[in-house]
Amino acid sequence: MARAFLHLNGNQTFHILSRSSVTRASLPHRSMMVTMSQNQSYWASINAEIEAHLKQAIPLRPPLQVFEPMHHLVFAAPQNPAPALCIAACELVGGHRDQAMAAASTLHLMQAASFTHEQLPLTDRPRPKSRPTIHHAYGPNIELLLGDGMLPFGFELLARSDDPAQNNSDQILRVTIEIARAIGSQGMVEGQYYELECPQSEGEELCDIGWIEQVCKKKEGELHACGAACGAILGGGSEEEIEKLRRFGLYVGTIQGMLHGAGKLEKGLMKVVEEFRNLALKELEEFKGGKVEAISSFVNV
Amino acid sequence: MARAFLHLNGNQTFHILSRSSVTRASLPHRSMMVTMSQNQSYWASINAEIEAHLKQAIPLRPPLQVFEPMHHLVFAAPQNPAPALCIAACELVGGHRDQAMAAASTLHLMQAASFTHEQLPLTDRPRPKSRPTIHHAYGPNIELLLGDGMLPFGFELLARSDDPAQNNSDQILRVTIEIARAIGSQGMVEGQYYELECPQSEGEELCDIGWIEQVCKKKEGELHACGAACGAILGGGSEEEIEKLRRFGLYVGTIQGMLHGAGKLEKGLMKVVEEFRNLALKELEEFKGGKVEAISSFVNV
Repeated sequence: MARAFLHLNGNQTFHILSRSSVTRASLPHRSMMVTMSQNQSYWASINAEIEAHLKQAIPLRPPLQVFEPMHHLVFAAPQNPAPALCIAACELVGGHRDQAMAAASTLHLMQAASFTHEQLPLTDRPRPKSRPTIHHAYGPNIELLLGDGMLPFGFELLARSDDPAQNNSDQILRVTIEIARAIGSQGMVEGQYYELECPQSEGEELCDIGWIEQVCKKKEGELHACGAACGAILGGGSEEEIEKLRRFGLYVGTIQGMLHGAGKLEKGLMKVVEEFRNLALKELEEFKGGKVEAISSFVNV
Repeated sequence: MARAFLHLNGNQTFHILSRSSVTRASLPHRSMMVTMSQNQSYWASINAEIEAHLKQAIPLRPPLQVFEPMHHLVFAAPQNPAPALCIAACELVGGHRDQAMAAASTLHLMQAASFTHEQLPLTDRPRPKSRPTIHHAYGPNIELLLGDGMLPFGFELLARSDDPAQNNSDQILRVTIEIARAIGSQGMVEGQYYELECPQSEGEELCDIGWIEQVCKKKEGELHACGAACGAILGGGSEEEIEKLRRFGLYVGTIQGMLHGAGKLEKGLMKVVEEFRNLALKELEEFKGGKVEAISSFVNV
């Protein structure tokens, strides 16, 4: 997972942008590179802790036929930054990252389960060339079961983080609802449904920018919105802070989807990305403290 | 769903047994038929309430392309008695059935999601003739997504039943963990994995009774054990009552799996069923009150 997580830091975003339509003038200068490096170690430290939490939570225990493949797929699935965003939001509102660690790990499990199911070879499934693929180490049946196992395990992990000393059970239940909605029929699953509807031409999509935006909002946008909101809830943020961070996550996630997912070559896409980047940063304007710069590095390159 | 639930009452169990290896001497006499009829209306009233709760919880809302098929599959999937057992256990320990209604509905959603995924046509999936099938109203892709949507929705429904007036959030979180384990990699998914391992011969299984027992314990047994334990938790039962009802559910569910699922023609099966039936009833011996007879009708025919 460590390698996968490298895609999530600011530096990587810079590379993506420099390959796309950003002009030379917008490339970072020396002092900005230093800040980026600091932000990079912020994200790296978060990601390392999420990985350690998950490794401890998913031991290689019997039956090994079930747990070994689950262990493999949880850490082999490509990552998105929603779990790290959850931790960053928690810290931004003054919480400790431990308070959001279980929710962040759950978000990673949900995303890994979804990715595993997305790779299943179904007879009526279009497979665009642009979608990332993984080596299928296991048969479809095992991969179906693994996804079906990871998802409830994510909810279990979250529920187990209930701590009488913190009196946080209401927060955990609220976050459970947030995550269930973001990955379910009003979020990621709805986005996957829209994705199926896109007409194909020799493996490349023929979909307009409105469609891409809709899919990315539902799939990546709402997962990131959920991650940021959950972090703020668990960190004890106010309702206003929670909603600001939810909107920040929605823009950030939609950008992630647009830059990495289907349709990334679409004309006019960078204009929408730039617009969402500005809207995202606007949501952070009223936050104070040292963590603002770190969280804004999601988009500020 | 009402029709599907009809399979769950005592009368139906009687028919199954009378078709199997039970002797004439064990058939119910007239007074027992009256009791069975009372028990039947007990189960029927529970099942009608679970159905109504689910219908209210899954409205036909936009996007209809997602919610209409979900609505269809939730109510078309064949049923097992785990949700009803959840309510019965709650009432047995002195709780009101409303306290366990969300958990029972969640159990139904989980079972429907699992069944939907079990029907997916995967290239490496054996399909025994004895397994029930449904008409595929939708393509595999939609059915995969629907299962992936139903599962988080089940957890959402459960988390939403948190009621500050009842101060039940710790119970809800405990039940969340119970359900996640029963349907995940230490429960139903593990059973489905074992099921894949059974050698096939022209669509009929060639597995021994030990294998059948293992699969049925993991798939149906642990789901019923979970249902009964969750009902007792939500109804305010003592730890001793919870564990007694968990064991009762394990026996009852394993019997259900053995009588309805793979390998039902296996020699010696009825001997094991009879043994489990006695062990199940033994767990109820120390319970008092009018509901004991009703819950024991799961096996007492």
